[in-house]
Amino acid sequence: MMKSSRLILALDVTSEDKALSLVRDLEGCFDAVKIGYPLILSCGLGIVGKISRFSPVIADLKIADIPNTNRLICEEALRAGVSGLIAHAFPGQDSLKACAESARAYGADLFVVTEMSHPGAKDFMTPLAEGLAKAAVEAGATGVVAPATRPERIKMIRSIIADKIIISPGVGAQGGSAADAIKAGADYLIVGRSITGADNPMAEAEKVLSQFKASVL
Amino acid sequence: MMKSSRLILALDVTSEDKALSLVRDLEGCFDAVKIGYPLILSCGLGIVGKISRFSPVIADLKIADIPNTNRLICEEALRAGVSGLIAHAFPGQDSLKACAESARAYGADLFVVTEMSHPGAKDFMTPLAEGLAKAAVEAGATGVVAPATRPERIKMIRSIIADKIIISPGVGAQGGSAADAIKAGADYLIVGRSITGADNPMAEAEKVLSQFKASVL
Repeated sequence: MMKSSRLILALDVTSEDKALSLVRDLEGCFDAVKIGYPLILSCGLGIVGKISRFSPVIADLKIADIPNTNRLICEEALRAGVSGLIAHAFPGQDSLKACAESARAYGADLFVVTEMSHPGAKDFMTPLAEGLAKAAVEAGATGVVAPATRPERIKMIRSIIADKIIISPGVGAQGGSAADAIKAGADYLIVGRSITGADNPMAEAEKVLSQFKASVL
Repeated sequence: MMKSSRLILALDVTSEDKALSLVRDLEGCFDAVKIGYPLILSCGLGIVGKISRFSPVIADLKIADIPNTNRLICEEALRAGVSGLIAHAFPGQDSLKACAESARAYGADLFVVTEMSHPGAKDFMTPLAEGLAKAAVEAGATGVVAPATRPERIKMIRSIIADKIIISPGVGAQGGSAADAIKAGADYLIVGRSITGADNPMAEAEKVLSQFKASVL
């Protein structure tokens, strides 16, 4: 992935028309577009090819199954044209390795969830974040997903994963500060609702981009 | 779910033709058919409606996201006609509750993964199995998924979830004993490759059914 805007758009919509009009209007503003199962289940996996005419696509599938099923899921998404995948480390090293091997075979990136930003993440995941980050390194992943809402956790994750890439959701609608997240070690920020939910997404994207540049330079 | 054969077919194929010919040939042999993302991504969510003409469908999506995304994923699958869903508990109580509420609104079942049978499950999940089972109870799930390969674990899970339903993969190809799993407290056994991979799936299903009846009665 090339660092240009250092921003990734989370395309959290379920309508194909809305998704395509957003990526068309916002072409060039973001380094990648992140989509998830709600959109894929609603439109079919063919949506990947349509979006990737405008931007590289990261499929945030939170993959969390046994190794063989993980491999089959990755291969379906990779054949459809995704350039990155997001998987959970929680089901274990062998499951994660299956994702990493599939991604590598297609020259795609694999990002691993180390922790999440919703309240329930504290129930089981937060205490395991270090172990999950180590599993990402061991599997040879491209990087990890760590919440921008907790910069001190990004710093801790950075100390484990060395020069791997950190992509961080939580800036904007969820209250995370772009400057703090980048200072703590995030490489890319993932922004979504503040732009996709705006009356004028293009104007909002330009605002976010200029605020972002001002805050991190 | 009605206990009739007490068997669930894991339809681990990715071709629509193969999937539909199997469920057509095996109609009436199983209480439900379990499908996962490899088949859904390959054929689209419309496959659910086609299979459910022959059997209730449990969508084994190992759902593992934040509450709002979980809700959107469940709603897509429920609108497509699934009668059951499988979710992970490790993203936390709020995420699981979102799945349980969606399932309930459609009169569908929710099953929660407590542990898995592949080697990597020991890395993070096995030590948490009790907590994951408690989370399933607290969320009001229909039941849990627990591996037939470890009957002593089924017994432990049963002691936590009282009269909730246990569905158990791992019998057959993975070496679990049907009789031991049922004796330990499993309500339904999930069988897959031994039948879907057989030259004559119908004959194999009849063999499994009669062996199963002989071993548990």
